[in-house]
Amino acid sequence: MNIRVELGGRSYPIRVVRGSLQEAGTFLSLNRRVLIVTDEGVPEKYAKTVAEKCLRPIIVTVPEGEQSKSFSQLEHLCRVMLEKDFTRTDCVVAVGGGVVGDLAGFAAACFMRGVDFYNIPTTVLSQVDSSIGGKTAVNLAGVKNIVGAFYQPKAVLIDPDTLSTLPPRQVSNGLAEALKMAVTFDADLFEIFERGEAMARLDEIIVRSLQIKADVVRQDEKEAGLRKVLNFGHTVGHGIESAAGLHGLYHGECVGLGMLPMCGETLRPRVLAALQKLNLPTKSPVAPEAILAALSHDKKTAGDKITVVYSAAPGAFEMRTLPLADFRRQIADAL
Amino acid sequence: MNIRVELGGRSYPIRVVRGSLQEAGTFLSLNRRVLIVTDEGVPEKYAKTVAEKCLRPIIVTVPEGEQSKSFSQLEHLCRVMLEKDFTRTDCVVAVGGGVVGDLAGFAAACFMRGVDFYNIPTTVLSQVDSSIGGKTAVNLAGVKNIVGAFYQPKAVLIDPDTLSTLPPRQVSNGLAEALKMAVTFDADLFEIFERGEAMARLDEIIVRSLQIKADVVRQDEKEAGLRKVLNFGHTVGHGIESAAGLHGLYHGECVGLGMLPMCGETLRPRVLAALQKLNLPTKSPVAPEAILAALSHDKKTAGDKITVVYSAAPGAFEMRTLPLADFRRQIADAL
Repeated sequence: MNIRVELGGRSYPIRVVRGSLQEAGTFLSLNRRVLIVTDEGVPEKYAKTVAEKCLRPIIVTVPEGEQSKSFSQLEHLCRVMLEKDFTRTDCVVAVGGGVVGDLAGFAAACFMRGVDFYNIPTTVLSQVDSSIGGKTAVNLAGVKNIVGAFYQPKAVLIDPDTLSTLPPRQVSNGLAEALKMAVTFDADLFEIFERGEAMARLDEIIVRSLQIKADVVRQDEKEAGLRKVLNFGHTVGHGIESAAGLHGLYHGECVGLGMLPMCGETLRPRVLAALQKLNLPTKSPVAPEAILAALSHDKKTAGDKITVVYSAAPGAFEMRTLPLADFRRQIADAL
Repeated sequence: MNIRVELGGRSYPIRVVRGSLQEAGTFLSLNRRVLIVTDEGVPEKYAKTVAEKCLRPIIVTVPEGEQSKSFSQLEHLCRVMLEKDFTRTDCVVAVGGGVVGDLAGFAAACFMRGVDFYNIPTTVLSQVDSSIGGKTAVNLAGVKNIVGAFYQPKAVLIDPDTLSTLPPRQVSNGLAEALKMAVTFDADLFEIFERGEAMARLDEIIVRSLQIKADVVRQDEKEAGLRKVLNFGHTVGHGIESAAGLHGLYHGECVGLGMLPMCGETLRPRVLAALQKLNLPTKSPVAPEAILAALSHDKKTAGDKITVVYSAAPGAFEMRTLPLADFRRQIADAL
């Protein structure tokens, strides 16, 4: 299945095919210097398979986890490219999950003010969501994605076979982002989750999620309006993620929790049931106050009000600007 | 005088008026949080004058010189914005020369993936050239501008009165970049330099240089073709600048030297005379071998050839791809 993100001169193809990692050499232009960025949690064989298709590959393996989305790793990647004499016509390939994609994409955006970037996501979260759309970033002072660039990849290659090495918890974690798209944009996709068919219909979920996201990004690349809807669940989710540091919740798990306070009365129990079917948590390990405190740097706050995405029914959404007190009450009620 | 850089949705105005620093509050939108970035070499009063027009100003003064174009200063500026609760609707203003503009512009490009950026250049070099066009960057491992972004300012405010505090050597240094535009694009402007009228006609030179650059950037924002002509003198110039570290030559002085080997036989003595009229150096303090060695990371090299901008007559240019041996010979002949 091929999907295209239509962005004029920055349009690019997404290929979703089992076994396609082996096609990297034909689908991508790797006959040059290639910085392959992966992390210690990704099976080594994926990056090696890609490296075999490159004229001059250099693999950099960063530590697993959010701490790799840092200024120091960004500088490290740029230094490696400099030392290896990369020019503007060379490229960067991310092989891994969202952390690797965000970091490698930002390095590609900055090095020589932009070299080609390819994304080969190998986790459910990155395959259904983060690998397309061009959001790249690092974290700073504990605040996620606060420094980055909108920088579109030249192509995205998705091989669902790579998901077979993922622990089940990571699969569920990624599906939370697909559930987010179902709740806000696609009632039929939501039914797949409600019926508990998500694991069995993974490839279909990947494709439908990417189609939704590609369509949103086409309409609003820089998140001036519609694209903000993709933050459904993320405002509260980021708050939980920051505050829950020691509780070790994954990003998608936090987003799943974050959706609940932002659902209408009749929708909330349905989303809760869908989360349960995915074995995702439905109770926040942190209190509403801690969530709110962690949100003070959130990009969506302005003064004593907050703008959030709200859904009353599957496939529907609206933007709501709430006083922080109301927002707090909704969190307390739902979590 | 108002000039407009036409770039569709990213178009912006440039205002060149003596005394206009006092108009900052009306020409720019400063009714918000404003990070003002300046350096220790810029008279404090300029940043303070701008700060008086802002709702919530924060002045950050970095050390003078290229060493401030670093990852660590970039991170510092982002941290300050984070600590001061900057949101996507706040902005960054550069008050100073090219170093401050490049650094502050890159910070604005990255913070929250882009906040508004205004440039208020206070040196000849930044007023005639670097403040417009959207090239922002930091240096890494001694290589200039190797990490950065194309990020256009929202407006550029130029007050030639600020030049009165500059030492004469800095004025000449900046005029080298205007001479570069004259040689490649504007025979009439070149005559002003030949007649030794540059100092007396500074405002006119600023406006004409900006008009040339605005026109080039409009046609080729990302330096895919025509914009490369603005690198006239810069290939050899960067080499001298890197190699001459201890000799303390300024950027424009190196660019001036760098033009000589890239001029045709009849043009070279005329450019040499123009450099002398500006009290700019005409002999390189470093040998051709050292210049070539320093060029190995230059963005214009590819294999054993190099692509350079060449001029046979004022107002004319061509791109030439030379074997490195020929390139070396031209440097040895001219410098």
